[in-house]
This record gives sequence, structure tokens and C-alpha cells, in this order.
Amino acid sequence: MSRVVKLAVIPGDGIGPEVIAEAEKVLDAVTADSGVRFEKTRFSLGAGRFLETGETLTDDDLAAIRAQDAILLGAVGGTPGDPRLKDANIERGLLLKLRFTLDHYVNLRPSKLFVGAPGPLANPGDIDFVVVREGTEGPYVGNGGAIRVGTPQEVANETSVNTAFGVERVVRHAFQLAARRRQKLTLVHKTNVLVHAGAIWKRIVDEVATEHPDVTVDYLHVDAATIFLVTDPARFDVIVTDNLFGDILTDLAGAVTGGIGLAASGNINPDGTFPSMFEPVHGSAPDIAGQQKADPTAAILSIALLLDHLGFTAEAARVTAAVEADIAGRTGARPTAEIGSAIAARL
Amino acid sequence: MSRVVKLAVIPGDGIGPEVIAEAEKVLDAVTADSGVRFEKTRFSLGAGRFLETGETLTDDDLAAIRAQDAILLGAVGGTPGDPRLKDANIERGLLLKLRFTLDHYVNLRPSKLFVGAPGPLANPGDIDFVVVREGTEGPYVGNGGAIRVGTPQEVANETSVNTAFGVERVVRHAFQLAARRRQKLTLVHKTNVLVHAGAIWKRIVDEVATEHPDVTVDYLHVDAATIFLVTDPARFDVIVTDNLFGDILTDLAGAVTGGIGLAASGNINPDGTFPSMFEPVHGSAPDIAGQQKADPTAAILSIALLLDHLGFTAEAARVTAAVEADIAGRTGARPTAEIGSAIAARL
Ligand SMILES: CC(C)[C@H](C(=O)O)[C@@H](O)C(=O)O
Ligand SMILES: CC(C)[C@H](C(=O)O)[C@@H](O)C(=O)O
Repeated sequence: MSRVVKLAVIPGDGIGPEVIAEAEKVLDAVTADSGVRFEKTRFSLGAGRFLETGETLTDDDLAAIRAQDAILLGAVGGTPGDPRLKDANIERGLLLKLRFTLDHYVNLRPSKLFVGAPGPLANPGDIDFVVVREGTEGPYVGNGGAIRVGTPQEVANETSVNTAFGVERVVRHAFQLAARRRQKLTLVHKTNVLVHAGAIWKRIVDEVATEHPDVTVDYLHVDAATIFLVTDPARFDVIVTDNLFGDILTDLAGAVTGGIGLAASGNINPDGTFPSMFEPVHGSAPDIAGQQKADPTAAILSIALLLDHLGFTAEAARVTAAVEADIAGRTGARPTAEIGSAIAARL
Repeated sequence: MSRVVKLAVIPGDGIGPEVIAEAEKVLDAVTADSGVRFEKTRFSLGAGRFLETGETLTDDDLAAIRAQDAILLGAVGGTPGDPRLKDANIERGLLLKLRFTLDHYVNLRPSKLFVGAPGPLANPGDIDFVVVREGTEGPYVGNGGAIRVGTPQEVANETSVNTAFGVERVVRHAFQLAARRRQKLTLVHKTNVLVHAGAIWKRIVDEVATEHPDVTVDYLHVDAATIFLVTDPARFDVIVTDNLFGDILTDLAGAVTGGIGLAASGNINPDGTFPSMFEPVHGSAPDIAGQQKADPTAAILSIALLLDHLGFTAEAARVTAAVEADIAGRTGARPTAEIGSAIAARL
């Protein structure tokens, strides 16, 4: 008897379709003789769709996506500054709308320095940590506004909203993850300056910590955290942080572990009420689109996160192992499809 | 005829007094036979003062400091988590209060990789840029609050306030600086997510750019900026950004240019209405205080910024040259005082 998983595939813009093609190759290969079958539905979303139809994400799109079991997303976004995309609102109206509506409150971003991966650090050490980034509130809510716009008297406010409900659930998730890993959790915030937002994060981490005496808890201001990410990244196990700090830290973490061409992420709704979404951390890179220059590894590692989330841990481990083996043997640049095929061939 | 400059000296806590002693050595040496005399007034401020008197920054302190021509600050802050400092409020009540009250709207943080400085990057390239960080608004204003504190229904808001007045003056300053340097200005923000705060920054940079056709303007999201700071820091000339992003980027920049032991900063009121304040980017590091382990270079380079700000450009250049020569010859660790004396001896 075979389990069927309904998978929404959103290739998106730029290099999105290219890297997703390789991710699908790998997904097909690893599930070929297994007890799971992925039933894929393709969604045309992103700058391309907007230019064709003027739509960013319709209610029908959203309803259809909600009915899936999981989502695989490539990358969305057109050429920066394209005047035709002025009203497309791809980031807030599509990507963040999916994360918020589908209650992806755990934005999971593992950082591991694979043997053979080229990194910018002279002495990186043994990097293997996970950033648990809150995904549904904080400075990302879009609250705020401006008065006297365009005049010398303009005032523009942007409000970060943090709830005990929202912070606690993601902090709990991070502690559980730390307990299964190396039992170390680092809260990153800026409590000395952002006193209101900082206090709720600090309080809740302290509270949940009492339920996890096994987990060592550490705190770093975000500025200090960026220093350690380049001078001693091996010190981290699980980092828990807000939406904006998580965005910043994971791009930096991607860079120190060999580039965001390797950085995968999961936008997870742990309750299972909504489908979770897996995507490379990188963007659509329109400048190199269609040239087979993009590295599909981040998309392929997102497949591993997707499989793991769905409970196919053995399959997930096989994908990761195939990627590790491929990276270890890398010598020079290969076309996107060649990398995907090489990894799929190992499965 | 000799010019007299009234200088407030705030050694502060931890390693502050040690590094300030060396900075003063260098200041004395470089002004010994010059046309300027620094008339110093010492202010005891910081965690130490709070523990003795219960005071953080009194109105009298502030009035006396305002009457000076410039301020040299070491570092303030006690041992993290010291329960006696729970109400000390050193960051917001002292450091930020000085920056805000004295209208230090330009937080100037140069990053240069000196020959011989040990950095974490394998191939750093030729790093030489300046971050112009806004210093008096943005997420640092402390606006916000929380309801139902300590309950599962708590909501904590933190509001970033950005005014055309505040953004424009710092953006103008950054453009002027870029025009005198390599004519490249990069705005760093997160306009795709922080739509309200981002829009005002973007609009004003675009507007001021029309007055500076000589300056090439670039934009980076803050997450992408951290990537470039470790993969291609040589691309930057002048970065202009808000208070929080500037805080994050300059710690990271300090790390990639050899550690925050070398990173100097100026909190500048360009109008001259209030005294400007010069301080190392590093904190008080109570764990190594009194052990002559701290590197006074950041404090000494802050003297160069101070001299430059006051118009003593030749003296400033001599201090920088002495530091460069010292760094070039570094082989191992030396006591704090030895580094200061060595640099002073070169003047
Ligand atoms: C595109 C943008 C809205 C997004 C974010 O800020 O979350 C991206 O940077 C990411 O990290 O996935
Ligand atoms: C101590 C703290 C308030 C301060 C800041 O955030 O500005 C520090 O990190 C700095 O960069 O000078």
C-alpha cells in the first residue's frame, strides 16, 4: 500500500524553474521504489504570472494550495526595479502571504559546512547549527504607516508585533529541537535597545528553559551574534530568533557555509493544520536565469527537509548523504541539470 | 596662540579605563608641540557609578557634558546579568541618552583592513569603507509597549520611527562623504518587507541622489549586505543605513577587518550644536577588565576621528599612520599599555 502526498510545486521566477526541475529529479529518484507517491500540482505564481495576468495570489490559488499536503517553492521575484512590477507586491503579497496565511511559524534554516564546500572563512571549524526563525510576526507584520508622505514633515512608522502566543510556540519548538541535537540554545535579539520586543522574548525563553534543564541557554545581542558567525560559528547549535534577525542571520550563515546556493529552508506549520513550504534561501536571481548557472543544491536540500517533515526520515537522510557526497567531489562549475542528475544518480 | 578644546573624558566600566588611558597617551603625544591644548574633564559614569550612587546620568552630568567641545568615551556596562544593575539602564539611560540628547545623528564607523591585521576571511581583498549609521531615530527610539505582560495574552510592540528630517540629514551627510571618497553609496535597508520605514529611506536617497550625479547609488537588502560583507567587502565605499541595521553591519564589519578591538566610531552632531562623542565600537568586556588584555587600538583610532572632526586633520592622519605602522609590525599579544606606548612613541 502506498501513501500519496499532494505536493504543490511553485517553480516561480528566474532560476526558480531550473532549480526546481532538479529538486523534482531527486524527489522522483529517492521515492522511486518507496511506499510514497507524490501527486504534484503546478502553480504558476510570481512576477511572470503577474506580468501575464496582473494577479499576484488569488483566493482560488490560495484555496488550492491549502488543500495540498506540502509545498515546494523555487524562488519568486522579477528583475529589481522593473517598472511593470511596481504593483506586483511579490514579497508581501505572495511569499509572505503564503507564510502568514498558512501559519508557517517555524522558519527552519539549517547551516552545515559540508566537506568540500567553499566558504569565505580561513578557519571555519565544524559548523552545524539550525536557526529557528519565527515566521508569522515581529517586524514582518507590515503594521505601521506614514503621514505627510513626500514632504519634509513625513513621519514613517513600522511596528514590530510580538505575542506571547507567537513567541512561545516557536521557542518551544526550538527547545525541542535543541534537546534532540547538542542541547544548546541561543536566543538572539537586541534586548538592550528593543526593550519592549526584547522583554517578551527573554521572558518566554527563560520560562520554557525551566522545562528543559537538559538544554543550556545562551543569549546574544544580534550584533554580537554576527561577529561569532564569522569568528566562531562552531559554537552554535540551535539559534532561536525573531523574523527579521532570523532573516539577517540566515543569509550570513548561508554565506559562511559556502554560499546561499547551498542553503535550504522550511516554512513549517508544526501543527499540520496547513501545508508546510520548502524553499531554497536564495532568490530568483534573474540575471543568471535560464543559463544553467544556478546551483540546485539548496532546492535539493529543501527536498530533504520536506521528506523529513513528512516523516520519511530515511529518504531525507539519503538525499542529504547524496548531496554531501556530491559536494565532497566538486572540482569546478557544472550546469544546473548536471548537478541535479549527479545527485539523483547517487540515489 | 594655542586653541583650547574642552574634552569630556568618560572612561566608563570594564576595560574602558584601560583603553582610554592609552588613547589619552596618544592624544597627549600628538598634540605635544601643536597649536592645540585639550582641557580634560573626567566624568565617572557607567555601572560603577550606578553601584556607588544609584545614578545613571543626572541632569547636572548632562549639562556639564553639553558644555564641552567633544567627548571621549571608553565603554559602559557592568557584568551581564548582575542583579544589582537591574535598574541601572546603562544602555538606554546613559549611552543612548547621550547620543539622542546630543543629537548625534551621524554614527560614523569606518572599516579598513590594515596590513597585518588578522581577519577571519580567507580572501578579504582591499577593505576600506565607512558606515554612516543614523543615530537618533529608527528602531532605537524606544517607542512601543506591552499589554497583559506576563500572561499568555501578552502583546509587545516596538515601533521604528523614521522622519524625513532625520533621514534626509544623515543621507545628505553620507552623500557628501561618498563624494569625497570613491563616489559610491549603498543604501542598506529591508524595503521589500519593512514597507513603511523602507519607503522613506528609499525616497530620500533617490531624491538626494539627483543632487549628486557624481555618486553611484546602489541598494542592498540588509540580509544580502551581510553576505557581501563576508564574500566581497571590497565592493563597499559608503554605506548609509538606519540605526539598527547600522548596529548589526558595523559589528560584522569590525569582525571582518580584524576584530572589534580595532573598530572606532564617532557619534557626530555635524551642526556643532552639541559636542560629538568618540568611542570604540567594542563594549566594556568586564571578563577581561583590569588584566591589560584589551586592545586599545579602537580607542586610539577614535582619537583620530575626534581630531579629524575638530579640524586637526594633520594630527588625525599622524595618529592613523602610527596605528597602521604598529599593526603592520604586530607579532603576538602585548599588554594594553605597551600597545598604547608603542603607538605614542611613533608620534
Ligand atoms: C524575499 C524576502 C521577503 C524573504 C524574507 O525576508 O523573509 C527572503 O529574504 C527570505 O529570507 O526568505
Ligand atoms: C550598547 C548598545 C546600546 C550599542 C548600540 O546598539 O548602539 C552598541 O551595540 C553600539 O553599537 O554602540
